[in-house]
Amino acid sequence: MEKAILLSGLYIITDHVKEADRDPATIAQAALDAGAKIIQLREKYASARQMLSWARHLRQLTQTYSALLIINDHVDIAMACGADGVHLGQDDLPAEEARKLLGSQAIIGVSAETVQEALEAEAAGANYLGVGPMFSTSTKSDAGAPIGPERLRAIKQQVGIPVFGIGGINPTNYREVLKAGADGICVISAISRAPDMGAAVREFLA
Amino acid sequence: MEKAILLSGLYIITDHVKEADRDPATIAQAALDAGAKIIQLREKYASARQMLSWARHLRQLTQTYSALLIINDHVDIAMACGADGVHLGQDDLPAEEARKLLGSQAIIGVSAETVQEALEAEAAGANYLGVGPMFSTSTKSDAGAPIGPERLRAIKQQVGIPVFGIGGINPTNYREVLKAGADGICVISAISRAPDMGAAVREFLA
Repeated sequence: MEKAILLSGLYIITDHVKEADRDPATIAQAALDAGAKIIQLREKYASARQMLSWARHLRQLTQTYSALLIINDHVDIAMACGADGVHLGQDDLPAEEARKLLGSQAIIGVSAETVQEALEAEAAGANYLGVGPMFSTSTKSDAGAPIGPERLRAIKQQVGIPVFGIGGINPTNYREVLKAGADGICVISAISRAPDMGAAVREFLA
Repeated sequence: MEKAILLSGLYIITDHVKEADRDPATIAQAALDAGAKIIQLREKYASARQMLSWARHLRQLTQTYSALLIINDHVDIAMACGADGVHLGQDDLPAEEARKLLGSQAIIGVSAETVQEALEAEAAGANYLGVGPMFSTSTKSDAGAPIGPERLRAIKQQVGIPVFGIGGINPTNYREVLKAGADGICVISAISRAPDMGAAVREFLA
């Protein structure tokens, strides 16, 4: 039950931003120090062995701070490091398969761009949705055109699980996402590219 | 024990060869029809969801033919489709981690280029080694320079598990690999690019 309570608010994704030379552990440490409670390890271009090494480091850090650790895409790495769950895109393993491998207690998040994808993910047992891109984004090269907060509102009206907005969210626009009904927001470059990552996290949390 | 007996001879890898428009199921079907008993699904550029779909198809095919199915890299997909095992490169999950996830009965193969990598893989519980590239190869863009059959001979003298040669093996050169002590050979483009895949498999098996 405690895990469900945590599925709201600020959700930090440690995706590598090439302009900022910060590895996932550096980003996670700063975010946790500033009070973040959900960390996702997402490194699309790292090897599985490198991912596992980072995942183990982040597992220790998140446990120290009583925060959640979610692994992007890789169910096997989530299992190997003892993460709290995984986040799956529409091209990753289906949520039902991840559930069979991870068990009933795992947190499984699914990316959804449409109401139909959102309903399918909920039916497949997803614990939360990542809905986006809210705004144009530079950190995910395969992200489509922004769908905007109104799509999130439409999805939120149809599903019962928590919905996070993702994609291009920054301190200027995040209130629009929350106003549309989001339970939380996922941020990547707004933290990892910030001159002071801790200050950036605190600004969102405030 | 039956699985151990099968870890020799011809080992077919279904890696996509862009010149030949054949998907993994087409390649596997032809190879199994011609008598192949070990099939590895390797598709470096496919999504996890596409891989799982192929893996399930190949699982049915290999069970029909009493052949082994090995999944490249993805331990989670191997678990989800009920494969016989996985093949891991030096950048993939370590063999010990794969063993914890897959259990004692799974077949775990590891790629090794050097005697040291081979000894480490054996100590980590690998069931067989893929040693190469034997010759220059066009199907694996990240493969290094050929190490040749003599390296395989040196490795074979140091380890007790089966050793397969891999990389650039064709009907003209495979005997060199077997003469160096290989328990078997892995072939990719020699099958998937062959005008008649079944005939190519039978030529190796003969």
